[in-house]
Amino acid sequence: MENADIRKDIPMLDEIIYMDAASTTPTPKPVVDAMCNYYYNYNANIGRGAYRTAVKASSEFEKARSKIAKFINSKPEEIIFTKNTTEAINLVAHGLDFKRGDSVIVPNIEHHSNFLPWLNLKKRGVNLKIVQADKYGVVDAADIEKAVDKTTKLITITHVSNAIGSVQPVYEVGDIAEENDLLYMVDAAQSAGHMELDVKKIKADFTAFPGHKGIMGPVGTGFLYCKADKMNGLQPENLGGGTVFDVTEDDFKLAEGHARFEGGTQNIAGVIGLGTAVDYIKNIGLDRIEKHSQKLTKLMFEGINDVDNTTVYGNPENIYGIVAFNINGANPHDVAKILDELKRICVRSGHHCAIPAIRHTGAYDFGGSVRASIHCYNTKDEVQILSETLAEISQFFGA
Amino acid sequence: MENADIRKDIPMLDEIIYMDAASTTPTPKPVVDAMCNYYYNYNANIGRGAYRTAVKASSEFEKARSKIAKFINSKPEEIIFTKNTTEAINLVAHGLDFKRGDSVIVPNIEHHSNFLPWLNLKKRGVNLKIVQADKYGVVDAADIEKAVDKTTKLITITHVSNAIGSVQPVYEVGDIAEENDLLYMVDAAQSAGHMELDVKKIKADFTAFPGHKGIMGPVGTGFLYCKADKMNGLQPENLGGGTVFDVTEDDFKLAEGHARFEGGTQNIAGVIGLGTAVDYIKNIGLDRIEKHSQKLTKLMFEGINDVDNTTVYGNPENIYGIVAFNINGANPHDVAKILDELKRICVRSGHHCAIPAIRHTGAYDFGGSVRASIHCYNTKDEVQILSETLAEISQFFGA
Repeated sequence: MENADIRKDIPMLDEIIYMDAASTTPTPKPVVDAMCNYYYNYNANIGRGAYRTAVKASSEFEKARSKIAKFINSKPEEIIFTKNTTEAINLVAHGLDFKRGDSVIVPNIEHHSNFLPWLNLKKRGVNLKIVQADKYGVVDAADIEKAVDKTTKLITITHVSNAIGSVQPVYEVGDIAEENDLLYMVDAAQSAGHMELDVKKIKADFTAFPGHKGIMGPVGTGFLYCKADKMNGLQPENLGGGTVFDVTEDDFKLAEGHARFEGGTQNIAGVIGLGTAVDYIKNIGLDRIEKHSQKLTKLMFEGINDVDNTTVYGNPENIYGIVAFNINGANPHDVAKILDELKRICVRSGHHCAIPAIRHTGAYDFGGSVRASIHCYNTKDEVQILSETLAEISQFFGA
Repeated sequence: MENADIRKDIPMLDEIIYMDAASTTPTPKPVVDAMCNYYYNYNANIGRGAYRTAVKASSEFEKARSKIAKFINSKPEEIIFTKNTTEAINLVAHGLDFKRGDSVIVPNIEHHSNFLPWLNLKKRGVNLKIVQADKYGVVDAADIEKAVDKTTKLITITHVSNAIGSVQPVYEVGDIAEENDLLYMVDAAQSAGHMELDVKKIKADFTAFPGHKGIMGPVGTGFLYCKADKMNGLQPENLGGGTVFDVTEDDFKLAEGHARFEGGTQNIAGVIGLGTAVDYIKNIGLDRIEKHSQKLTKLMFEGINDVDNTTVYGNPENIYGIVAFNINGANPHDVAKILDELKRICVRSGHHCAIPAIRHTGAYDFGGSVRASIHCYNTKDEVQILSETLAEISQFFGA
């Protein structure tokens, strides 16, 4: 599948230069069609419905689960659907049996969604050991190893920083977790659908995924990979329809496996769309997406770095899909607005829900940073237009 | 808007007789179109994006919040979006500051989603006072009043039972809660979009809503009405992107209002679709929906009751939209399957995620019940076909 074919499936891209993939990606037509097909032809709830329309809905929902599981080299019974990545991470933070005095190792460059759920465990007497990244926003696996002590229960780390684009040593950290017999969680918000991601190779016990970012599925979808042998160690928080096997007026017996976490009516259309999105991404090919994005990321970094009066964050050799920058002296929101006004370039600006990371990079004093983030549908031309337009804006602010 | 016009918007209804509204309703074309419009024309994340596509997405999302708020006579700042009703109820159960020894009053005919979150509070030393419904599945407000004592912190009750269709005295209970200065929660899963529902008249502090049932919005949507002055008394559980104002490595400061509960990327398309669904329902008219459904419910009850060898649950004078029944000696799943095979009638069968309620009605020994549930798109003819087909099936089982 060529870039031009992908763009045909996303008509919006004829109008705008979309560079906010790290926030959400546009949903291609086949994915939207899959959802419409559900709504128009077999709109029913899943679960124990005996009639054929409900059986069809359940079967398509579970087919999507199988596709998603295979995509990350796991089993269907290891996939718990959530509404987004944030919910998937919170599910682990709330669900694990932490004891007072336990500790969690977490880098200082995480998205709030992989920081606050752990910081909040202080209420339960759990300590955070925050590992500092280097000046490029990369964590050294050796520093994580040094932070391990007998109180450590879990290590959590993002695969790719949403604020800087820096790629973290998730494989090395996986080895450290394994050697020290620790639980290991990875936040795949910025990597899933953008690069090969095999939960077995990473040796993760838990990995949190968005549906609506790199995988190009619908908003309102996400999932948690939970290694089969860790499923029973997680307690569900969202109890209700579908989560139990039996209920009396005094007690209840939880359902087995992922069902206990999927309370209430699920985003059936969304999950079915997400299954189609996985097909779509596989059809393009993750290896081709990765090569394309690596090339464009490098071009983008160099192009922006060549513009006078800019500060670009991260190490060009170790960022992926995301370039964060500032025009010195300009508020990042102003830069984003002008990029849109001049060339309809859509970039995010501000703290990117990662204030500690923004503080770490030094961008806090600017009011955050401008962040351009790409995917398979972006082109070399678009990247060029971005740096040319930034050069114009920079002159304006320099004047 | 006439019944025939509604049916035109739901092409699936040409093929099947859909009588499973209590589980989920088909989503009419204008609602699906609103979601497609988001996906094709302004597919961006909401929040602090400075570019116009993101501003448009945020603005449409917030417009939907306003419409939804107005629909139930509340204010936009009182609406917290969730993925479903279950999440909305859990949000209250987890978020309130219960003390050891506090108690919660809950009827015995609730859906698991308005029972388990409270039963689970036993872990925190909170007691449940379970009020028994009468033989028709109706709770007497006087019994709730009798259950109130100095330990009572909250009364929760469903508006309409999903298992029996019985309408509960939510207004009277609201008065009792007010007089005793207690928190009051209503589960509107089976009433919202089916009848007038004014949270101020009910005097509810919290009301949990599905998007995908009576309101005919998309799956993956729901919301909690939280009375403005109760918002700060709720602690969020799902922390992450969007829920905080500031974060350091040691602490965080929560955002004000509903933002603190809406962590991570929201189901933007779904919420926008839900806003359109509210317009759709208002356009039909809740008063007309109510009259139509009352008439059909009565016809349905009588039709089924006239079939030999059936047990029909509930009091025909006090059920709404739902008729639960069994053919004596037949497994409810078998009856549902045969209804589908003979006439493509779609009804739910089993315990309806309400095992205590099913035990209460006596249907547990049948393996649950068959449940036919209707909405504005159903017709008198369909109701007649249901009872005629049941008569055929009953003969078969009687033979």
